[in-house]
Amino acid sequence: MTYCLAISVDQGLVFASDSRTNAGADQISTYSKMHRFGANGERTLVLLSAGNLATTQSVVAAIERDIRVEAKRNLMNVEDLGAAAEYIGGISAEEQRKHRSGPTSEGFQPEASFILGGQVRGGPAGIEHIYPEGNFVRASPSTPFLQIGEVKYGKPILDRIISNDTTLDAALKCALVSMDSTMRSNATVGPPVEYLVYQADTFARGTYDVLEEDAPYLLELRHAWSDNIRIAFESLPSAPTVIGADATVRHI
Amino acid sequence: MTYCLAISVDQGLVFASDSRTNAGADQISTYSKMHRFGANGERTLVLLSAGNLATTQSVVAAIERDIRVEAKRNLMNVEDLGAAAEYIGGISAEEQRKHRSGPTSEGFQPEASFILGGQVRGGPAGIEHIYPEGNFVRASPSTPFLQIGEVKYGKPILDRIISNDTTLDAALKCALVSMDSTMRSNATVGPPVEYLVYQADTFARGTYDVLEEDAPYLLELRHAWSDNIRIAFESLPSAPTVIGADATVRHI
Repeated sequence: MTYCLAISVDQGLVFASDSRTNAGADQISTYSKMHRFGANGERTLVLLSAGNLATTQSVVAAIERDIRVEAKRNLMNVEDLGAAAEYIGGISAEEQRKHRSGPTSEGFQPEASFILGGQVRGGPAGIEHIYPEGNFVRASPSTPFLQIGEVKYGKPILDRIISNDTTLDAALKCALVSMDSTMRSNATVGPPVEYLVYQADTFARGTYDVLEEDAPYLLELRHAWSDNIRIAFESLPSAPTVIGADATVRHI
Repeated sequence: MTYCLAISVDQGLVFASDSRTNAGADQISTYSKMHRFGANGERTLVLLSAGNLATTQSVVAAIERDIRVEAKRNLMNVEDLGAAAEYIGGISAEEQRKHRSGPTSEGFQPEASFILGGQVRGGPAGIEHIYPEGNFVRASPSTPFLQIGEVKYGKPILDRIISNDTTLDAALKCALVSMDSTMRSNATVGPPVEYLVYQADTFARGTYDVLEEDAPYLLELRHAWSDNIRIAFESLPSAPTVIGADATVRHI
């Protein structure tokens, strides 16, 4: 499984991804799911991937090849973020189609999902969710984050914290807390955790780091969050004593 | 969708269930998913249900009929909690089988899952997860809670808080926080919320209540949790400035 997320706030974008890949419980490997392109003062693009590893690797390889051979349409010359998402969605759908008709295709799942984020000069920074079918949706001001893979465990904290005026610093913290909750509840999502923070309108590489399982900040965050949640929980009001509760019991 | 959970701690048991049922987004209804039997000084049993509403209603009806006609084997005479789970699992599997071969059965999903909890005199209090196939597992000291339905959003808080020595009061608070997080993140899980707290070795009805959407305690808990989570989040350490982060960026 996989957990990747991207957050789009007024100040810019935050990306985070885990690195665990598994095909069955005994085939667990570590692969980066964060791919960066551009950052050349004209465009910055970040691609997060989930799903079939062969498909996502083929898609990234095709994107890189198109850039290398300066194909008529490639990620370095598409006119905006939407066009970039459409270009990648097309490659992804094509890659899946190729393998779906293979000799042992029963039960084979070539699907892959992507989050594409970044900024192309002339347009705003943004994030797009590219579906296995190749179509895509953009995050909106009222839904300022996107997730792919194992999305549910880490969603409540994003629902509660993230809004458009969240700072990049807080958005990064929130992304890492969301990632930590997911890793805690699902063993197939695991470190190292990669993150990238992109400040809007800089068209630069942004701040990138890889946090290994024992990275001091990740450990500090995990322990502080665990302690803080416990305190938050313990200071909640207790349920009132329900007087005469038995009266509401339906008899059989 | 549905969210039901049960927690088993040294002091006793806590049950909670939402009441929303949907067959498509425009067929939303309110049904109780908590069914109580016994509480006669000899046994107390609570059944939580998720899945196909026709199946779960048939199962409850069959259980009640067997008690009414004093069938040779019924919930009031099975010897322990495991036997009760096996009895209910058998009824559930049979009900599903009946309808699976109907005239328009393609795409039809008669599956239902249950949590059965309580205590039969002579045995300890406990909770069991009954699968659609009719088999079942009991919660263990290291996994002191069970969930059915939309389980993921509300799991992280249970993972962090619940252990065997958690008090019934804290377990109830935790169950309601878990329910609130799920209702917030999934629109198909909704109020009213029913809960029941059973104190071990009492064989009594326990404390039962139905919390409507605007129940003062539910609102108070929701707001306090929302505020506390925000404070817990804001007091987390910030990510260190990543000096020279650009150096780690892979160029394409």
